[in-house]
Amino acid sequence: MNKNYYAILMAGGIGSRFWPVSTAELPKQFHDILGTGETLIQKTFNRLSAIIPSENIYILTNNEYGSLVKEQLPTVKDEQVILEPAMRNTAPCILYASLKIKKENPDAMLVVAPSDHWIEDEASFIKDIQLCFDTCQNNDVLMTLGIKPTFPNTGYGYIQHKKDATEVVKKVERFCEKPDYKTAKKFIKQGNFLWNAGIFVWSVQSVLNAFEKYQTAMLNQFLSGFESLNTDEEKEFIAETYPEAENISIDYAIMEPSKNIYVLPASFDWNDLGTWGALYNELPKDENKNAVVNAKALLENSKGNIIHTTKGKTVVVGGLKNYIVIDEKDKLLIYPKKKEQEIKDLLKKLNNKFADS
Amino acid sequence: MNKNYYAILMAGGIGSRFWPVSTAELPKQFHDILGTGETLIQKTFNRLSAIIPSENIYILTNNEYGSLVKEQLPTVKDEQVILEPAMRNTAPCILYASLKIKKENPDAMLVVAPSDHWIEDEASFIKDIQLCFDTCQNNDVLMTLGIKPTFPNTGYGYIQHKKDATEVVKKVERFCEKPDYKTAKKFIKQGNFLWNAGIFVWSVQSVLNAFEKYQTAMLNQFLSGFESLNTDEEKEFIAETYPEAENISIDYAIMEPSKNIYVLPASFDWNDLGTWGALYNELPKDENKNAVVNAKALLENSKGNIIHTTKGKTVVVGGLKNYIVIDEKDKLLIYPKKKEQEIKDLLKKLNNKFADS
Repeated sequence: MNKNYYAILMAGGIGSRFWPVSTAELPKQFHDILGTGETLIQKTFNRLSAIIPSENIYILTNNEYGSLVKEQLPTVKDEQVILEPAMRNTAPCILYASLKIKKENPDAMLVVAPSDHWIEDEASFIKDIQLCFDTCQNNDVLMTLGIKPTFPNTGYGYIQHKKDATEVVKKVERFCEKPDYKTAKKFIKQGNFLWNAGIFVWSVQSVLNAFEKYQTAMLNQFLSGFESLNTDEEKEFIAETYPEAENISIDYAIMEPSKNIYVLPASFDWNDLGTWGALYNELPKDENKNAVVNAKALLENSKGNIIHTTKGKTVVVGGLKNYIVIDEKDKLLIYPKKKEQEIKDLLKKLNNKFADS
Repeated sequence: MNKNYYAILMAGGIGSRFWPVSTAELPKQFHDILGTGETLIQKTFNRLSAIIPSENIYILTNNEYGSLVKEQLPTVKDEQVILEPAMRNTAPCILYASLKIKKENPDAMLVVAPSDHWIEDEASFIKDIQLCFDTCQNNDVLMTLGIKPTFPNTGYGYIQHKKDATEVVKKVERFCEKPDYKTAKKFIKQGNFLWNAGIFVWSVQSVLNAFEKYQTAMLNQFLSGFESLNTDEEKEFIAETYPEAENISIDYAIMEPSKNIYVLPASFDWNDLGTWGALYNELPKDENKNAVVNAKALLENSKGNIIHTTKGKTVVVGGLKNYIVIDEKDKLLIYPKKKEQEIKDLLKKLNNKFADS
């Protein structure tokens, strides 16, 4: 395995649309949401370990989840778990991790990837990552994996590449924010748009070049303590510096302004498991298109539902069509699948209603 | 309080239509199904204690539930808990209990009542029972409390009394088994039919007179060991005799053949809590006619549901109309209220489906 290969796993999200399984106390990435025996972060870590030495996989998360990471990834050393001392967006934490890695190995090649996505075809994933590594090895470019869109999803950002580009690795023309439905349909029709899955590949030198060009202030903030990184002084320096950093995503900070961005259309199936409906799509189903995870379920006159419970729960359902039924310890959700985007707002309503209890 | 007043509380049922709260391990009568802080048997016991010395209240149940009874009614002495050594119908166990009471107090007056019904108006209940006691004190009659029917329920037996009877206590003409819908409607229209709630009042002498007339064999079986009752020898005698007794209900055994049956139309509201829908009718409801017990519930676009969970469970529901949503530890039921009669059969289906797991 190439000792220069590194990964930064993003594991600080809350996944509130996956309530009630995903909560601030135990977010989605730490759940075995597919009922396979592995949590999403474990699956992601193991998938990356096939191409990246496991001691080179860093996990970016916040203080609250540090112990969960160590519990679920027991082979990971303390140094591999990077805790953000404050809630910022992705640019500061990726920069921070990149500088630490740069100091350890200036020849490092990085994958940046979310820890809570579904990718089943690991062989294709590895092949694609390898191709990206090879491209970045020899060129000062920033790469991203784009997902071939299957429908006009308005919940994702899109990546536009040159129309009719015949190369495998395509030059990116622009990043598009989450479009409205009409625009999303147009994107699909044009054919040169891919979903932005938040999976990036670059050499540590190239990403720092980009920060130098487009985020000079932020880079200088962190460079001022470069000496302290990977030493006993790091913690104090970061505790002071990090909260000062701008709250900005990696997409805005460097991907959008950069001219040297390339995209590889992924050869694997992908699902961000952003909602229960997204999970439903990936689960095996019975003859009535019901997907059942963990439950002992008897479904009468019921179609197109996802039933997800703690292990061994007995569930009897009658007359439900296209519902989300989620039972997680002291929480129960029974909601129409097509209205799942409401779940995030419902939680605020719920918290207000029971604020006093 | 009159020392001759006794009660026999029937507490051996399983209440399978109240699944998943009511199970063979913990049947309905041992649950705080209304969320009031008291279980149904506790409520029933306390209600009777207002007119009957609590040491005269006997609880008839089976071996499995003996410890539950003692746990929930801690003031009750061992002698007050009568355990049926075998599953028989109500006639043998009422006879057995009556003989024990007769031996202790030949002047005893008895109420026989289920332990799992809902009666909120305790003052009226006590008044009615007192009137029955007074009637039975001076006459060799068997009395029952009849419930004024509010709709043509096909799940209850009916009691027919003389048409246009002006007396408060009315002579019973016949007991009718659960009718079909057409017959039930006719009963309601005729006006001289009441629901049979299984609440009986009589002197111990009168009920034994009836057994002598109509169940001579059974009476003699039990009388053969009369000496042993309330002594150390009772257990052995009953273990031998009881399983030999005929499997027959008190209604068939003595009420139907007897000529000296009278009914008092109850002046209190009554509900047998036989189904979730029946419970729903007695619960307070929100502006959308949702009844919530124990749960912290957020109900969006939902009407006419009953939500019943363990204490403090958070429940978010969308778009459900007239559903039963019951969450009880490792079991969850989501079923249309109008199909609740299917629940009993669903349990067999469920057990078959997961027989191997």
